[in-house]
Amino acid sequence: MNEPIVISLLDLDFYKISMGQWVFHRYPDVLVRYAFRCRTPGIPLAEIIAEKELRQELDHVRTLRFNNSELHYLRGTNEYEERMFKEAYLEFLKDLRMPSYELERVGDTYCLEFPGKWSEAIYWETIALAIVNELYYRALMVRLGSFERDVVHANGVIRLCEKLKTLRDHGRVMFSDFGTRRRFSKAWHDYVVRTLSEELPRTQFIGTSNVYLAMKYGLMPIGTSAHELFMIRAGMCETDEEIRKSQLGVVDEWWDEYHWGLSIFLPDTYGSDWFLQNVMTEERARTWKGTRQDSGDPIEFGEKLIAHYEHLGIDPRDKLLIPSDGLDVGAMTHITDYFAGRIRVSCGWGTNLTNDLGLQPLSLIIKPVEVLGRKLVKLSDNVAKATSGSAEEIERYKKIFGYTSTFEQRPLY
Amino acid sequence: MNEPIVISLLDLDFYKISMGQWVFHRYPDVLVRYAFRCRTPGIPLAEIIAEKELRQELDHVRTLRFNNSELHYLRGTNEYEERMFKEAYLEFLKDLRMPSYELERVGDTYCLEFPGKWSEAIYWETIALAIVNELYYRALMVRLGSFERDVVHANGVIRLCEKLKTLRDHGRVMFSDFGTRRRFSKAWHDYVVRTLSEELPRTQFIGTSNVYLAMKYGLMPIGTSAHELFMIRAGMCETDEEIRKSQLGVVDEWWDEYHWGLSIFLPDTYGSDWFLQNVMTEERARTWKGTRQDSGDPIEFGEKLIAHYEHLGIDPRDKLLIPSDGLDVGAMTHITDYFAGRIRVSCGWGTNLTNDLGLQPLSLIIKPVEVLGRKLVKLSDNVAKATSGSAEEIERYKKIFGYTSTFEQRPLY
Repeated sequence: MNEPIVISLLDLDFYKISMGQWVFHRYPDVLVRYAFRCRTPGIPLAEIIAEKELRQELDHVRTLRFNNSELHYLRGTNEYEERMFKEAYLEFLKDLRMPSYELERVGDTYCLEFPGKWSEAIYWETIALAIVNELYYRALMVRLGSFERDVVHANGVIRLCEKLKTLRDHGRVMFSDFGTRRRFSKAWHDYVVRTLSEELPRTQFIGTSNVYLAMKYGLMPIGTSAHELFMIRAGMCETDEEIRKSQLGVVDEWWDEYHWGLSIFLPDTYGSDWFLQNVMTEERARTWKGTRQDSGDPIEFGEKLIAHYEHLGIDPRDKLLIPSDGLDVGAMTHITDYFAGRIRVSCGWGTNLTNDLGLQPLSLIIKPVEVLGRKLVKLSDNVAKATSGSAEEIERYKKIFGYTSTFEQRPLY
Repeated sequence: MNEPIVISLLDLDFYKISMGQWVFHRYPDVLVRYAFRCRTPGIPLAEIIAEKELRQELDHVRTLRFNNSELHYLRGTNEYEERMFKEAYLEFLKDLRMPSYELERVGDTYCLEFPGKWSEAIYWETIALAIVNELYYRALMVRLGSFERDVVHANGVIRLCEKLKTLRDHGRVMFSDFGTRRRFSKAWHDYVVRTLSEELPRTQFIGTSNVYLAMKYGLMPIGTSAHELFMIRAGMCETDEEIRKSQLGVVDEWWDEYHWGLSIFLPDTYGSDWFLQNVMTEERARTWKGTRQDSGDPIEFGEKLIAHYEHLGIDPRDKLLIPSDGLDVGAMTHITDYFAGRIRVSCGWGTNLTNDLGLQPLSLIIKPVEVLGRKLVKLSDNVAKATSGSAEEIERYKKIFGYTSTFEQRPLY
């Protein structure tokens, strides 16, 4: 066995920690289940990745603990708010042992699930995705000849170099690395982030979502929250009205936890239109820092967001738009230029940043699928991204949230 | 200091050994002088390469000896003729210590010369060129940032990959590595040759001129003779008639040494037209294997050569044409396709093979400039490549050989 892929529990996305504390403070013992899925069709994952290796990697993660320096780093994190991580939470992290997983080969792919207390199972997502990704590309690389492997790496370097050239020509484009979950390998991710940190000013390369790399290279750790908060909180409810109310609850509890520092809306879980009308009311829209756009059309959504702010008498130029759905340099440049002078744009750049070496990237996801034994629903602003145990549940949620979107596009990554 | 660049006396071009034995057998004590020159204008070599480093590298070569395994390799060389290297010569090599050099900074470049007995000084050429080249590119690389260096290497890999693709699409193109003297670095040269040996069949990648790499990778060592034989032998003569006769002498003495195995004409030292008419008479043309084309236009020369063979009643399809002047894949493909079915073509591929990473290659040469205190002349089939101590001597040689070529083109490399 090579050195394990994940050698630190900080090798995950910052939002797992920021959400982790929120969950720890509010819903620590709620039982949830996360499930892995490969959205890219026709990939026989179980033929490519050996089950034994996958188990070894996942098992190794369960031997890891947050060490003293890592806890110091979190305790010292002040980029969003002084002492944003409380001692009780850091104590909890100190004792955390990653909960067990369920892995089974089904046909030519894997059923990989993470059941457990929300406060513990939450940390698996980006860790397990990074592991599956790396094992997959490692297997592809082993099948190549030595020179072909060099060509793959060289392609990665040249493409990164071209990205840097374009970004230097478009100094207005601001972005962060969001690529942990889809990285070609840990080593490549490290190389990309180090190179960005050396080659671009911090006013352009803002930081990385990967806490381990943020710590290693002294970068700003980036991240706020994900759909799972909205999905699981909705799933905990009985009536339609409770479900609707839960969405406001998530947002207000998030403000209570982190205040202005991490006040980035994520409006698309059950359709952004409903969210803008019902959650982004004047007071919240005025106090919150900005909005992340993770599905649908970023230009269309940005226009809608600006119109919403203006309708409320709020100057959108003080607000932040964070596109994060399948971006590349062209899209980042286009969105940034398009909204220049109208709203601030800072991009979250994932797959195309950390897995662009000429091999097809995989669209792997790990999503919460159950809470308290009940199936969870996500709609998003892209019909193709909707998930649920049943069509009935999706229809129910569409009604609850007055969902009318017809935008449909297979996820790029 | 890094590991020295040249760590084996076999890290030179095979023709230095094949010519070396010929010289050892015939003119061992003739005093000659080789001189280094950079033909690329505007390169302040002495500003870029530290004199101390250059001396260290050259001095290190003088500590080297042919070791027992290297002598075994030469003794066992049977690709051209059984036991082509005689015991007396191998004994001589065993005791060889590279003669001293003269190095002086002149303005922003170096005067670097190698005086001595022909049988000893002959080995410096490709060794010293490889050293100057590597020190030059090493200095350029040190000035780059870490990522820029990665990009240079990645460019090298991608360009090599594109070369391989084109060569696979043109399986008829046959070539050998002639790139020792102009290589980006020893490590890169090694990488290129190893990759070619793994990626292409031996019917296409015939071998390498570098004896060390031929030995390391079990490849065919490639090379015959160079202009220095014709130049120095002419320089040893007094009268015009003796000079003309010396050219036939070189050719016949070469046949006496190696017979059919290394019978490749090099016709352009004083103009190929004279050579074809006066040296490549029917018997020689019929017995010799082929001809190397090292200056002028390869298509034009090939046509002339084919016409010459046909005029003599010899089937050119049994003969070999070896273009070796500033080739790239495009030129090799064009020449090979152009002459398909008319004459066999096998290319000698140098600078563009071993120094194509995006940095400008240098046209560095080391040529014999004196014999017995007399300046040497070379004309070639390219007026821009003519060299001599004086214009009068060039004119004299032009008259002697009825030289009328007007082809003029700055050497690509």
